Amino acid sequence: MTAAAPRKTTARLADGREIIYFDEHDVIRDSADSRSIAPAATAPELRYDPTRDEWVVFAAHRQDRTHLPPSDECPLCPSSPERATEIPATDYDVVVFENRFPSLGGGGDSEYAPDRRPAVGRCEVVCFTSDHDASFATLSPRRARTVVDAWADRTLALGRLPHVEEVFCFENRGEEIGVTLHHPHGQIYAYPFVTPRTRRMLDSARRHRERTWRNLFADVLAAERSARTRIVAETEHWTAFVPAAARWPVEVHLYPNRHVPDLPALTDAERDDLARVYLDVLGRLDRLYDRPLPYVAAWHQAPARIDRDLAYLHLEVFSIRRSPEKLKYLAGSESAMGVFVNDVLPEDVARRLRA
Amino acid sequence: MTAAAPRKTTARLADGREIIYFDEHDVIRDSADSRSIAPAATAPELRYDPTRDEWVVFAAHRQDRTHLPPSDECPLCPSSPERATEIPATDYDVVVFENRFPSLGGGGDSEYAPDRRPAVGRCEVVCFTSDHDASFATLSPRRARTVVDAWADRTLALGRLPHVEEVFCFENRGEEIGVTLHHPHGQIYAYPFVTPRTRRMLDSARRHRERTWRNLFADVLAAERSARTRIVAETEHWTAFVPAAARWPVEVHLYPNRHVPDLPALTDAERDDLARVYLDVLGRLDRLYDRPLPYVAAWHQAPARIDRDLAYLHLEVFSIRRSPEKLKYLAGSESAMGVFVNDVLPEDVARRLRA
Repeated sequence: MTAAAPRKTTARLADGREIIYFDEHDVIRDSADSRSIAPAATAPELRYDPTRDEWVVFAAHRQDRTHLPPSDECPLCPSSPERATEIPATDYDVVVFENRFPSLGGGGDSEYAPDRRPAVGRCEVVCFTSDHDASFATLSPRRARTVVDAWADRTLALGRLPHVEEVFCFENRGEEIGVTLHHPHGQIYAYPFVTPRTRRMLDSARRHRERTWRNLFADVLAAERSARTRIVAETEHWTAFVPAAARWPVEVHLYPNRHVPDLPALTDAERDDLARVYLDVLGRLDRLYDRPLPYVAAWHQAPARIDRDLAYLHLEVFSIRRSPEKLKYLAGSESAMGVFVNDVLPEDVARRLRA
Repeated sequence: MTAAAPRKTTARLADGREIIYFDEHDVIRDSADSRSIAPAATAPELRYDPTRDEWVVFAAHRQDRTHLPPSDECPLCPSSPERATEIPATDYDVVVFENRFPSLGGGGDSEYAPDRRPAVGRCEVVCFTSDHDASFATLSPRRARTVVDAWADRTLALGRLPHVEEVFCFENRGEEIGVTLHHPHGQIYAYPFVTPRTRRMLDSARRHRERTWRNLFADVLAAERSARTRIVAETEHWTAFVPAAARWPVEVHLYPNRHVPDLPALTDAERDDLARVYLDVLGRLDRLYDRPLPYVAAWHQAPARIDRDLAYLHLEVFSIRRSPEKLKYLAGSESAMGVFVNDVLPEDVARRLRA
């Protein structure tokens, strides 16, 4: 594999949002956005929860966002002479653009109370392919590699923006978890704070380093590679396993064998290998119940500025589907107390995913 | 109101589980459980997640638990000559019994690795009424008061058990959040650790006290009572409000005006008043979309042993329903990163609930 880095072209949509093409071959991207659309009128806001020491995002305008449009009205398909979409070009490989209904972005100049802030940051959409009916699992290794390069590029670029403290690349897949557009796509959130989950992981990693002088995540990976009972797939550069204390009925973590902070730090060989192993894992997940699995695929990267030495890049893919017919719901114990109850043993899930 | 405390009768079910009747009038509870049922074969297990510093519960046997039975097979209705249920009596007011498919309980003697533990503790079911088609919101104030007394009784009794560090009284309501039995009931989890949510709240409260010499929750309550924009209901002893940084599209917190650690600490007058104001709040919630609202109602109490001075009893009721037709789903930002995105402003929700 190891093709040349994708060709990157940056342009603007009619309302000023940025769009960035990542092309696998030389191509001129000069299509203009023919729509007349105005910038969003209201900016999202952050409010501080003093009991949790966490921020919550308020994005009231999102109630109106596009909800499961028919495929001939999909805003993520390329434009045609008859219909202008979010992507002015008539075809694309991978394309990234600023979300029209962002949870984070804008409003940097407002005056605010101590427990409120403008929700600065940025939300981007990543279209994996122009093929409306594809899924990540059906992409070619070459295309998956282009997506990896796009994620790495955006992680670097967004991490350099003022206010941005953490860049989160993820895919929500399936109506069961509220996905509103079927076209294969992911999202990137550039948060103006280190997220609660990352803070918690880094706190644990800091305590572990003080006690052992070692990296927590490297030790978790080494323990899984040694136990072997929860391994799902292994390649030269990557290891996929079901974590010993999985919270979800289906959950796979994918770690690079080398300790790196984030996607931009991966070598060409590691990226190629990632494309292959991730497609393999997604294929196993879709075969688990013989139907497309609803999932969240979440990249955990080092914060943009602080504690970068403590973090360890990895992907967590998890699903609420606990049988072909049943979903796991978050009820009192999980939602109110943060105590997850899992009906499925990780060793059993790993065995079925390996098969 | 202020009736005599409910009459309490304790008995055993056929498999040894405890059942406790809370009766509003004198009645003899001597019905025996006529079923032949065996104790659960497998005990749940706790596993430690070192990256989050949290425990996860594994309860594999729960995959087989009773799922939406027709109403003539409801295990929470009283027994009849034709059919033996979980409650041997032919009628009851409020009854509590050990869950047949518990997430916590048993297994105290097993040998375990450092990152695994038997899931000691206890799970109980609280039936609010023998009327299968009722709901908490349709209970009489007298019955609601009996439930409050049952919660307080169980909080005290379970908090005294060895291993139990926190007692959590809650109700999951609605198929939308995975409720598997329609009969009006709640649950009590007696955890062998202080839950992640409570740890976080107590950490915040500790920092607040060090900085201000004041109780964090009392200050939050005072701020809401002063701002008034998010108040939903007020009585002599209680205040209900939508929190300023609500995570859910519908969320109401109910605080006693006096600082107490838990339900057992409430006076008779406070309990009577709680019964009335809680019924009022639940009625408002059901009228919000003109249909029964799916919700989680979660009592936050002080841990059984530690940090009891930092905690402040309160109830949090929240719903995933964000419009008559739409639910809020937890996707990447919420599930993977702990950053909640709310489409609805708390002040707007409070205004609609007050109306």
